[in-house]
Amino acid sequence: MRIETLLAKRLAEDPKDAQTPGHKLLLRGGYIRQIGQGIYSLLPLGQRACAKVAQIIREEMDRVGMQELLLPVTTPAELWQKSGRYDAIGSELLRFTDRTDHPYVLNMTHEEVVVDTVASQVDSYRQLPLAVYQIQTKFRDEARSRGGLIRVREFTMKDAYSFHRTQEDLEDYYKQCHAAYVRIFQRCGLRAVVDIESDTGMMGGSVAHEFMLLTPVGEDTIVLCDESGYRANREVAVCKRAYDYADAPEPLTEVETPGQKTIEEVSGFLGKTTDRCCKAVAFVAVLPPKKEGGAPAERPVVAFVRGDMEVNPAKLKRALAQRLGILQDLRPMAEDEFGGFGSVAGFVGPIGLTAGAVELVYDESVAKTPNLIIGANRVDWHATGFNFGRDLPEGTPFTDITDVREGDPCPLSGKPLRLSRGIEVGNIFQLGTKYTESMEFFYDEEDGGQRVPIMGCYGIGVGRTMASVLEESHDDHGPIWPITVAPYQVQVCALQAQKDEAVRNTAEAIYQGLRDAGIEVLIDTRKVGAGFMFADADLIGAPVRAIVSPRNLKEGRVEMKFRLAGESRAELPADIAVEGAAKQIERIVTDLLQQYNILE
Amino acid sequence: MRIETLLAKRLAEDPKDAQTPGHKLLLRGGYIRQIGQGIYSLLPLGQRACAKVAQIIREEMDRVGMQELLLPVTTPAELWQKSGRYDAIGSELLRFTDRTDHPYVLNMTHEEVVVDTVASQVDSYRQLPLAVYQIQTKFRDEARSRGGLIRVREFTMKDAYSFHRTQEDLEDYYKQCHAAYVRIFQRCGLRAVVDIESDTGMMGGSVAHEFMLLTPVGEDTIVLCDESGYRANREVAVCKRAYDYADAPEPLTEVETPGQKTIEEVSGFLGKTTDRCCKAVAFVAVLPPKKEGGAPAERPVVAFVRGDMEVNPAKLKRALAQRLGILQDLRPMAEDEFGGFGSVAGFVGPIGLTAGAVELVYDESVAKTPNLIIGANRVDWHATGFNFGRDLPEGTPFTDITDVREGDPCPLSGKPLRLSRGIEVGNIFQLGTKYTESMEFFYDEEDGGQRVPIMGCYGIGVGRTMASVLEESHDDHGPIWPITVAPYQVQVCALQAQKDEAVRNTAEAIYQGLRDAGIEVLIDTRKVGAGFMFADADLIGAPVRAIVSPRNLKEGRVEMKFRLAGESRAELPADIAVEGAAKQIERIVTDLLQQYNILE
Repeated sequence: MRIETLLAKRLAEDPKDAQTPGHKLLLRGGYIRQIGQGIYSLLPLGQRACAKVAQIIREEMDRVGMQELLLPVTTPAELWQKSGRYDAIGSELLRFTDRTDHPYVLNMTHEEVVVDTVASQVDSYRQLPLAVYQIQTKFRDEARSRGGLIRVREFTMKDAYSFHRTQEDLEDYYKQCHAAYVRIFQRCGLRAVVDIESDTGMMGGSVAHEFMLLTPVGEDTIVLCDESGYRANREVAVCKRAYDYADAPEPLTEVETPGQKTIEEVSGFLGKTTDRCCKAVAFVAVLPPKKEGGAPAERPVVAFVRGDMEVNPAKLKRALAQRLGILQDLRPMAEDEFGGFGSVAGFVGPIGLTAGAVELVYDESVAKTPNLIIGANRVDWHATGFNFGRDLPEGTPFTDITDVREGDPCPLSGKPLRLSRGIEVGNIFQLGTKYTESMEFFYDEEDGGQRVPIMGCYGIGVGRTMASVLEESHDDHGPIWPITVAPYQVQVCALQAQKDEAVRNTAEAIYQGLRDAGIEVLIDTRKVGAGFMFADADLIGAPVRAIVSPRNLKEGRVEMKFRLAGESRAELPADIAVEGAAKQIERIVTDLLQQYNILE
Repeated sequence: MRIETLLAKRLAEDPKDAQTPGHKLLLRGGYIRQIGQGIYSLLPLGQRACAKVAQIIREEMDRVGMQELLLPVTTPAELWQKSGRYDAIGSELLRFTDRTDHPYVLNMTHEEVVVDTVASQVDSYRQLPLAVYQIQTKFRDEARSRGGLIRVREFTMKDAYSFHRTQEDLEDYYKQCHAAYVRIFQRCGLRAVVDIESDTGMMGGSVAHEFMLLTPVGEDTIVLCDESGYRANREVAVCKRAYDYADAPEPLTEVETPGQKTIEEVSGFLGKTTDRCCKAVAFVAVLPPKKEGGAPAERPVVAFVRGDMEVNPAKLKRALAQRLGILQDLRPMAEDEFGGFGSVAGFVGPIGLTAGAVELVYDESVAKTPNLIIGANRVDWHATGFNFGRDLPEGTPFTDITDVREGDPCPLSGKPLRLSRGIEVGNIFQLGTKYTESMEFFYDEEDGGQRVPIMGCYGIGVGRTMASVLEESHDDHGPIWPITVAPYQVQVCALQAQKDEAVRNTAEAIYQGLRDAGIEVLIDTRKVGAGFMFADADLIGAPVRAIVSPRNLKEGRVEMKFRLAGESRAELPADIAVEGAAKQIERIVTDLLQQYNILE
């Protein structure tokens, strides 16, 4: 490819609307073009990098015996109604009607479709286990998209599904897929990827792992213990908190707290630390419609946690799902939605609320800390001396609904936990029989009975993985692509080619030689200064750069420059002989590629 | 791949709902699974064949210097409003709203998005010409889908777009793309593909060609002259009709024709041939809403053609578009929609209709044939002796709105035209500046002025091409895949492998040797009879079959069978030596593949 015809407008300045370093470089290098909120075109550079990620994934899925298929983007609502998720999922699931007013969805994930498809082909235990995958477009109607390709609404995903006769067999295959994922991220050149326990969320199932790239720009929070190796998404992370309070229970006493609403105001006013306040946070749980086609139902919720802690919405959602069934959504209650359960915003407390009008969820910290300050459910009043076991009916349940904090004790070692940010680049789930049961996928077992297969599922975002590589591997000048993902492997920079025939001929010969050898190569013979040409090449980020200049040629040399992510540079030459230059560069590229050629 | 784990349930019987031989085989072989009306999952066999077609297309697009990119499936309505097609296209364009009620479309083609995307990266004439392509999912809300993958609503398409400074440059590149298309279909093993002139339809532009596979199950009709080489889709085909009538004009006379409505009834009743009747066909033209968000406007239309001819809706649409602008749709008028323009169903004629209430379109045949019978616009009455030039106001326009018929004279040679059915496997358009103008894609010309590029566009349906190969190459037993498109190149059939260790070991060694050589191979070692095993293999259709049996082994041979489409069989061996069998088969596969390796 000649650089003047490459469809990629490079920008010298950072675009204003980019949110992360990687996002900036995707825009500055002409990798992507935004078409709508969370909807992008991949320009040739972006498409090339994504195609390489996809091919690595494909090879590793094939290696664990998966069969590639292609499921549709659009699907009649019936399949999603059959699994129950048509109602269980809120507005993230894009619904539409066709010309005959028949309801459809844009698939955000494919469990329903894959179970229908595989069930149509499988009758007998002899066909199991089996696993399939696809690399396909999905749509998730996110309220917020961000970071270029990190969180988008339309995205390309590799999703895989396995079907087993026994839980043991699933667990064995799950381990193979786990290993395949490790290889995929290694081959993509991602270094700081860890696997962590995760929430199964709307997918259902029991065991799940996320693969997280640790990076300050990640939108997930990961809880780690360097001592025990404990690693979990904050959505499921736990800790072993000590509640060693020695003070005797005080009587429950109402006190006037005029205008004091926040935890800081109330605790300061009453001369206590924030861990002696009970914080009330009000939400609205959005539940599936009671009858088909109806409006979603809503239920007020108040969560009580200690004043020094924060409610973890994922944990609260799970606690509520135990009582109410799966929630479509959980949103903060607006001030004007208060009322109806006997309290006022800023003064909500656990005693005296209207019976049955609100779901109350207590955190362990509220149950185990004595003498808390609570809201009195009327304006400008609180109460001191609240003691959970004494002041609430016996058997009132409590659970864990708070965020683990930096320094909280590890549940395994008791040592202080560490927090890190991460981007979820992949996930794997042991789904069980949730979908095979609801979609009625029966097969004949060897013993003559009918069974449903046990499922696993395995996802990786293609564009997100490509963008994550960029978040991890770049400097101020541009991407530092691992050679396995780089849109081009080599860039030939020919200085003064317009006036120096020897430069021109040498550069073109190297370019042609590399093309003939199947190397992905760009050539720049434009009439521009060396500084401009190199800065421009930095934005494209080919790992290997060959510089042909009048000065080098006089010495019979071609100058080599490398932009390498993670590779060992020890044996890379500073320059090479003009003679056989294409062959020499081909060898360098092959050697670099081999560093990623992972065999188990 | 071992046959027992291949996700493909083969059916011994033809499924009832299949419409074409190819459709039957796609279902019988387990290539596809229907998920909804015109929406399919590709099972592994289907996915493998489609991936091969896609790769052939990709290589040929790369060869003519195209850059691959990926445009989104979903797009905000604004881009389609900008080009005017949001209103101009009817219910084929799937519209939906997202969680914020913002309007979107599922792209059925990508001119709008590609112009927006390319324009964002191109400022200068130095960047032109350039061409891009993608292989991406599209959705077209067809009223009728049919024939498995031939006409579906969701489909994978290669669409390409080129941008030029001059019409000359476009025409030159158009020729290169034409040649690339010829190579693509050859490499896919399609034999009876012809290129024909076609209608530019909703795409706009002037010159367009379709690539048609001639096959009795095609849904398009193609007009051909073996003498002159004239080839055109019946939607645009013309002919040179003779109107050599010698009879003098008779007076216009009303006659009672009680209960005689059809052309056959009226002509029989009055003792004339059908070519002396004037047939009136009533339609409703659906026009874009007058104001944004409004309902489409409707306008009654009556088309007059001679009684022995048929109205061609595409031609009529174009004639109406000249007067009314682009139509969203043109549908037959229902009987209860008559009235309002002064006539009654069955007796519609050109004289006496309410002025201005209906669009009247006359075919040349009506204008040039004397003494026609026409409807009198009242029940049970017609008139004889209608003469267009005499009885209608001077200058009343007429045009060509009829189907060319088998045997009509070729417009070039005058020889009888021949009709054939065809499947459109690809199309290429010279689009002009319709989209670059409406989307305001300006670039700086060398002379300092601002211009819009001239566009071409180039489409191929991936799944449709795969299915077309099957329509052309099959027998009653199954597909006869060209080796370039076959899901598997080789199938090893091991007879009595369960009890004969030598058979088992030999077959497995061949299988492993072929896998190691990168050959796509299936192995069948099941405990089934030879008849069943071979019939099953026929449904998968690997071009090369190696049969290992106890009897063959005694003679030191492996029996070879071939299912080949179009290849020369001359030098193919009936059997090969067991020694080095994998190597020998590898060479056979390589030789077969080379027959498709077309270099210009």
